[in-house]
Amino acid sequence: MAKDIITERSEDYSAWYNGIVKHAGLAENSPVKGCMIIKPYGFAIWEKMRDQLDKMFKETGHVNAYFPLFIPKSFLSKEADHVEGFAMECVVVTHHRLMKNPDGDGVVVDPTAKLEEELVVRPTSETIIWDTYRNWIQSYRDLPLLINQWANVVRWEMKTRAFLRTAEFLWQEGHTAHSTQQEAEEETRMILDLYAQFAEEWMAMPVVKGVKTINERFAGAVDTYTIEALMQDGKALQSGTSHFLGQNFAKAFDVRFLNENNKEEFVWATSWGVSTRLMGGLIMTHSDDDGLVLPPKLAPIQVVIVPIPKPNEVINEAADKLVKELRAKGISVKYDTDKKKRPGFKFNEYELKGVPVRIGIGKRDLEKNIVELKRRDTMEVSQPSLDGLADHIEQVLEDIQKNLLTRAKNFRSEKTTVVDTFDEFKEVLETKGGFISAHWDGTTETELKIKELTKATIRCLPLDAQEEEGSCILTGKPSRQRVLFAKAY
Amino acid sequence: MAKDIITERSEDYSAWYNGIVKHAGLAENSPVKGCMIIKPYGFAIWEKMRDQLDKMFKETGHVNAYFPLFIPKSFLSKEADHVEGFAMECVVVTHHRLMKNPDGDGVVVDPTAKLEEELVVRPTSETIIWDTYRNWIQSYRDLPLLINQWANVVRWEMKTRAFLRTAEFLWQEGHTAHSTQQEAEEETRMILDLYAQFAEEWMAMPVVKGVKTINERFAGAVDTYTIEALMQDGKALQSGTSHFLGQNFAKAFDVRFLNENNKEEFVWATSWGVSTRLMGGLIMTHSDDDGLVLPPKLAPIQVVIVPIPKPNEVINEAADKLVKELRAKGISVKYDTDKKKRPGFKFNEYELKGVPVRIGIGKRDLEKNIVELKRRDTMEVSQPSLDGLADHIEQVLEDIQKNLLTRAKNFRSEKTTVVDTFDEFKEVLETKGGFISAHWDGTTETELKIKELTKATIRCLPLDAQEEEGSCILTGKPSRQRVLFAKAY
Repeated sequence: MAKDIITERSEDYSAWYNGIVKHAGLAENSPVKGCMIIKPYGFAIWEKMRDQLDKMFKETGHVNAYFPLFIPKSFLSKEADHVEGFAMECVVVTHHRLMKNPDGDGVVVDPTAKLEEELVVRPTSETIIWDTYRNWIQSYRDLPLLINQWANVVRWEMKTRAFLRTAEFLWQEGHTAHSTQQEAEEETRMILDLYAQFAEEWMAMPVVKGVKTINERFAGAVDTYTIEALMQDGKALQSGTSHFLGQNFAKAFDVRFLNENNKEEFVWATSWGVSTRLMGGLIMTHSDDDGLVLPPKLAPIQVVIVPIPKPNEVINEAADKLVKELRAKGISVKYDTDKKKRPGFKFNEYELKGVPVRIGIGKRDLEKNIVELKRRDTMEVSQPSLDGLADHIEQVLEDIQKNLLTRAKNFRSEKTTVVDTFDEFKEVLETKGGFISAHWDGTTETELKIKELTKATIRCLPLDAQEEEGSCILTGKPSRQRVLFAKAY
Repeated sequence: MAKDIITERSEDYSAWYNGIVKHAGLAENSPVKGCMIIKPYGFAIWEKMRDQLDKMFKETGHVNAYFPLFIPKSFLSKEADHVEGFAMECVVVTHHRLMKNPDGDGVVVDPTAKLEEELVVRPTSETIIWDTYRNWIQSYRDLPLLINQWANVVRWEMKTRAFLRTAEFLWQEGHTAHSTQQEAEEETRMILDLYAQFAEEWMAMPVVKGVKTINERFAGAVDTYTIEALMQDGKALQSGTSHFLGQNFAKAFDVRFLNENNKEEFVWATSWGVSTRLMGGLIMTHSDDDGLVLPPKLAPIQVVIVPIPKPNEVINEAADKLVKELRAKGISVKYDTDKKKRPGFKFNEYELKGVPVRIGIGKRDLEKNIVELKRRDTMEVSQPSLDGLADHIEQVLEDIQKNLLTRAKNFRSEKTTVVDTFDEFKEVLETKGGFISAHWDGTTETELKIKELTKATIRCLPLDAQEEEGSCILTGKPSRQRVLFAKAY
């Protein structure tokens, strides 16, 4: 049983997570500290996420481009907050050649091949992109620029975990340029909505949309918007961010344009990104002690057919027909004819990998005109008729997609607590976890104090929060809106 | 006219190439030496190439994965030829943190954040992938592994040119593992055929399939296969390579498997790749003095509709109908309603960008039930009827795709010369250029001598060459097969 392979959540949540990553074949550590290898099955899921996001970006008028991996070190310093935020995590290229080791085996860095200016491996690309935009933008007619790039970035981290925090990760970063503040702010919010829609409709992962506190803002942003999801262990996961950058980068890189009245202005900017971190969110939102659970829309294999106990002519015929019908509906299906593995072994394997629907076809069932169907989300087994089976499976896949979202929403509701005192706050945090909705006096000082005392951070000021008079749970000072606290990844 | 913007080929071929890259909006230099910025229009073409290749890889059983950007320096040395081939081009990461400059402005490398072992930015990924495969392969049941990755790689170059030779470039690298030599060799050749098919059917770029000489082999390969294309200036472009690696990397990284007879063997390997260099090949195969010429299958915009002189109700109605009909056929079309630009300006712009078909719709033509159609490949203008126009355009696009391939094949035939003496060889090389089919004695010494004397290299030993007794053009020594020489990019 899969249960014997993977540590149970209740026993050790972190070991459970690592077990899923390993046994579902998603990723593994590489010999380079903090860098992971994304294995074929994990990458196939990421490809589905990427392709859908890319489609949504293009439908909203964005185009892709590609900017260099390296950034001249001096560029980073041009925006003061930006360099402050990223300098500690930057890996640096200093030389461009190796040579034979004059004192022994192998190769060493050739000391004569030192770069004039060190290059930083991009931790994010605002600086090199805004340096480029200076030449691309002269007049309001050149605006807006709505550009995205899919790329790898590197932020050196001491403690890393597959997908959630790795030195190198894959992401998309949108960088847009606008002629007015309003248009840039609308873009920032539109992308936030797009991210939330993707998270809910594709990942079946409900998110809270909100704005970050000053303390949690992106380095160089005027406002950072975020989508925050809640994991099964009651910790929050920041899953995507969309930044209104004001004119900060335009000023740092001197990017001006002539407006319709022929007057010169600085350009308004946004940037936004989601990364392979979403894979971590996907795993921790739905999976269980039997392995990965995938929403059908992101499953590389949506239906697996297993012959019981092994393939024969009659079973093959029924299976081939079903495969054909499902493929005609655009459903991805695998018929596993491997004779070396027994059905029970296969069942475990596909449960570990989170395949949403498993169909078992046996000779005796065929005589009764039925098959065995197992849903991965509920583990329910049923015996649907062969008649109209493809239609039925299509319906089950839709049900699973909906059920996963509903389940995750219910979980989040249960794990969201409104508290009014600091004692309550601490108790909920320790016993129940989850999101805590509480009043806060709006100062960074109080925010940091609460973090120091409890490890909880302000995840966001939810966009849908009502104005409500109250007093800060720590200082008792007046507050006009509840904010969302949680321990977070 | 576009002719006034771009230097003519006859005047300065290199300036012409740079002009196309710039004025068609494909790419530009970045502030990082040798690294280019791929602009949205250029990237849209690359995306089309990538998506088609990806489809072809998947249809032949390959899956994608992702391996780290960084490679521990010591890994490179494990395969002797490999390190020899790449050490001179490797950029090296030595530190993982920046700090405020204690002596002035900006940031400097933090000397306390030195990496224990320097990391090389991957110039290619054989070493880190075979280090990983050691853990993935135990028995013949784990084979074959058919894995590809789309990635950026870095090879420091002193002289760079957009797409053709850049320090950072985008590519795909396939890395497969097999239980027998035969299967690995078949994979190598199958991928070569796939590359050739892609080049001809999608890029309309004919290629010669062949095997490289020892001297031109990939560092670490037993055999390197290549597709070689001929550019309009008579120089060859190596456009893709597929390597049979034997057991070299399996031995270097100790990757063994138990075969069906329970005996331990080293695994057999291949690797293969094409890169953004293909963009250079695409440009130089078809484009002319008016700008880029694109084969319809790779054109981001296949048809552009221009209202003459500007949009009005009658013209919009006809254009909208045509747009709808073309889209229903899966043809990408843009209706350019920009009122600020005159038709002549738009004509030039879309010719520069290589849009295959331009439709001009004017009121007077509409009264006659016709439009104006201009083909980008031949620059021919015609007045087709509105009746059945979408069908007609579809046919014209197919014609253009075919015509570009035929034209390029004819050009290559004209520019391929069979010679039997070294004097003839030198004369053809100087006056006509192109591929030269000649006898060679099979030694690296002669190959290098010819290169030194003429700058021509052996592009490949064509796979379809006939056995033919002859004598080497330089040494007069016996030869049994003609090889293909050319000056090359």
